[in-house]
Amino acid sequence: MTSVVADIGWLAGSGVPWSTEPGVLDSRRTDRSGWAPDGRPAAVVFPRTPADVQRVLELADHARTPVVPRGAGTALTGASTAGAGVVVLDLSRLNRIIAINPGDGTAVTEPGVITADLDRAAGEHGLRYAPDPASVEISTIGGNIATNAGGLRCAKYGVTRDSVLGLDVVLAGGRLISTGRATLKGVAGYDLTGLFVGSEGTLGVVVGATLRLRPLPLLTATVAASFASLADAADAAVALTAARVQPAVAELLDAATLAAIDAAQGTSLRAAGPALLIVQADGAGAAEEASLIAGVLGRTATTLRTTTSPDEATVLLAARRQALPSIERLGRPLIEDIAVPRSRLAEAIREIETIARRHGVPICTMAHAGDGNLHPIIVPDRSATEIPAPVRDAAADLFDLALRLGGTLTGEHGVGTLKRAWLGRELGPVQHDLQRQLKTLFDPHEILNPGKAL
Amino acid sequence: MTSVVADIGWLAGSGVPWSTEPGVLDSRRTDRSGWAPDGRPAAVVFPRTPADVQRVLELADHARTPVVPRGAGTALTGASTAGAGVVVLDLSRLNRIIAINPGDGTAVTEPGVITADLDRAAGEHGLRYAPDPASVEISTIGGNIATNAGGLRCAKYGVTRDSVLGLDVVLAGGRLISTGRATLKGVAGYDLTGLFVGSEGTLGVVVGATLRLRPLPLLTATVAASFASLADAADAAVALTAARVQPAVAELLDAATLAAIDAAQGTSLRAAGPALLIVQADGAGAAEEASLIAGVLGRTATTLRTTTSPDEATVLLAARRQALPSIERLGRPLIEDIAVPRSRLAEAIREIETIARRHGVPICTMAHAGDGNLHPIIVPDRSATEIPAPVRDAAADLFDLALRLGGTLTGEHGVGTLKRAWLGRELGPVQHDLQRQLKTLFDPHEILNPGKAL
Repeated sequence: MTSVVADIGWLAGSGVPWSTEPGVLDSRRTDRSGWAPDGRPAAVVFPRTPADVQRVLELADHARTPVVPRGAGTALTGASTAGAGVVVLDLSRLNRIIAINPGDGTAVTEPGVITADLDRAAGEHGLRYAPDPASVEISTIGGNIATNAGGLRCAKYGVTRDSVLGLDVVLAGGRLISTGRATLKGVAGYDLTGLFVGSEGTLGVVVGATLRLRPLPLLTATVAASFASLADAADAAVALTAARVQPAVAELLDAATLAAIDAAQGTSLRAAGPALLIVQADGAGAAEEASLIAGVLGRTATTLRTTTSPDEATVLLAARRQALPSIERLGRPLIEDIAVPRSRLAEAIREIETIARRHGVPICTMAHAGDGNLHPIIVPDRSATEIPAPVRDAAADLFDLALRLGGTLTGEHGVGTLKRAWLGRELGPVQHDLQRQLKTLFDPHEILNPGKAL
Repeated sequence: MTSVVADIGWLAGSGVPWSTEPGVLDSRRTDRSGWAPDGRPAAVVFPRTPADVQRVLELADHARTPVVPRGAGTALTGASTAGAGVVVLDLSRLNRIIAINPGDGTAVTEPGVITADLDRAAGEHGLRYAPDPASVEISTIGGNIATNAGGLRCAKYGVTRDSVLGLDVVLAGGRLISTGRATLKGVAGYDLTGLFVGSEGTLGVVVGATLRLRPLPLLTATVAASFASLADAADAAVALTAARVQPAVAELLDAATLAAIDAAQGTSLRAAGPALLIVQADGAGAAEEASLIAGVLGRTATTLRTTTSPDEATVLLAARRQALPSIERLGRPLIEDIAVPRSRLAEAIREIETIARRHGVPICTMAHAGDGNLHPIIVPDRSATEIPAPVRDAAADLFDLALRLGGTLTGEHGVGTLKRAWLGRELGPVQHDLQRQLKTLFDPHEILNPGKAL
């Protein structure tokens, strides 16, 4: 490991709990991308209050010590990795749900709250926190905000940004601001709330959030259909819009994914066709929407099942939930995350199959079909100690494909460290430079999660 | 009028059509706030392409000539007013709908497109552009973006920002960037799209937009109910959430508004009670939701009507549509726009009644009850040549009320020139200063709509 001696003498005088215990440092070096930078962080600090965060950022700014804010470390992009010479700001102790306001349709939380815990607390009032990243049971509200996390229900309810009304943010240097508002609607001043969401802790540290809650749907209905071709499945997903229904969930699984599930779970999904589409509708009209959805899917599906029973829905959704654990048996998955205009979904998946063949690496693809967000999962052999060249090349081809189809490098996971080299191509030089100037305006000494997001 | 001689010699060499004809200049001095600055603008320029806008901003930046971008001039805040020494950038000729992409669920437009025209074009494909400001038939997409316009359907579908996926923006100095994306989902880089939306042309000039379209609802159902007290009506609106329904529209009209409508239209709405609540549900479950809504409202309503017939819905919504024209018969209305946490709606309206009595000015209040956005309309006598002192004092008390209740100065109209003096109180000094630094980063020579928004 690289040895970098950071000046962290200021921590002793901060009054904020901290640790330099090797086990603690090592547990905060990486995220779920598996990628880790050289060396160990100099310390992990555990603020208990927003004032603690202010104190840490003030002292770190004076000492010019880089600070890496961290939630649960579930990012898939290297966004919360921490190497030599940095202090990790572990926000897990800022974990209070401060208020659920049913009359206002809002919640106020600290950043360390587990997302599913907030959703459950809202559920006691007949409300729901809509964003549902796959990591919902282990990731935090603060981490979801930092990465603008998506999930299955985005087609209808949007990404995290669409549920964030206001933020308390500690700026570099330690000053605290409250952006946005406590109301459902408001347009005073520039939208700094949106700017902080998805900025991966590079512009400020979120220490509180006012979030929008929505009514818990009265009913959820589920339709699952197999198709004789991937194009049929993708076309059916797109045709839902023409039928004037708004699915809450529309998950597409390709042949490689179905084969992986069958191998791991003993199912026979692949035999029913090379593509499986699972669609959910929710709300008072869910049963009627499901009937319309079944009508659209039924035109070309080889098998079709519809249910409004939660237990049966669990069975139908099992394939989607088992997909990643099943793929993990094949190797160590590299989960990619591109998005394309929705009408180009079938084309994108066909090209991904070509990329897999070209580089000789297995790629299993799942897609949030309602919004054109694809997760091609490259599965190199587990024996490799670092990412093999064909995997890197395949990933590069995936990014190239996304941009060529008019899409984006990242639909919901963010840029982190792993996509930085590509970001300039998507933004263009003028915008890339403007975004860098923004970073400098907010963080002139480059203290906040340097080397991430941009 | 003040005489300011601006250097506009550069216009002649720009190749972009422009005018200094007095009638043209006068027609671009003000917006629908009725407020106008001193003097006449030096010229109005009519770009026909994004490249024309680039040329104008490049030359204006060199010459240090302030530029005021203008859509249809329907802002209610002075946001597009233009006085001596400035050049008005009239974007009405950039009025093409470039594409409606039903498969992608998107539209691509120029800024001068009338919002209702886009919605109608989407409707031909079974789609809808959800944001519906009251000005929808006369205002432009560019103006809606500049002010982050709201409307009646925000409770379910959000404000303009929630339907903007990407923007083409000409920066001060003339460079063009494309922010955001063409896909429904994407999180690459900082969210500049959200930063430009609502910035009132002070950070850049929008010359193109990729917008999200949603399925046109299969059914819309309407419930109208009168109440014996305003508190009953407001409480009923809040109770809808507890019934787990998501209204698309929830409009509350107070006694003064109902009396104004009765006087102008010969109706007898006020006699049924001092508050009228009109709620709409849309989508496949609209009829069932309307039945649930009627159940909640029926607990305390004095009258109740429900319909899924479009013609009958028009009758029930007539009161809301006739409100402003009816109020205009009483005097020259000053339309305010505050928002409060939804549970404090009744309290806010009671306090507004107190403010009206205290200053001896009539105030009619309508509210988007689903999101706590109130429009108290102060109605001074039409004889006044400028805003009378009691009206100014009442407006100040309204802003004070909004902030005191944990709300905001502006729910959907923006800051413009008329609320600038109050903005610092809402943002706080640290955030206010940070937003000013942002403005300087984007527009170092203060060319873009100076003196607005911030």
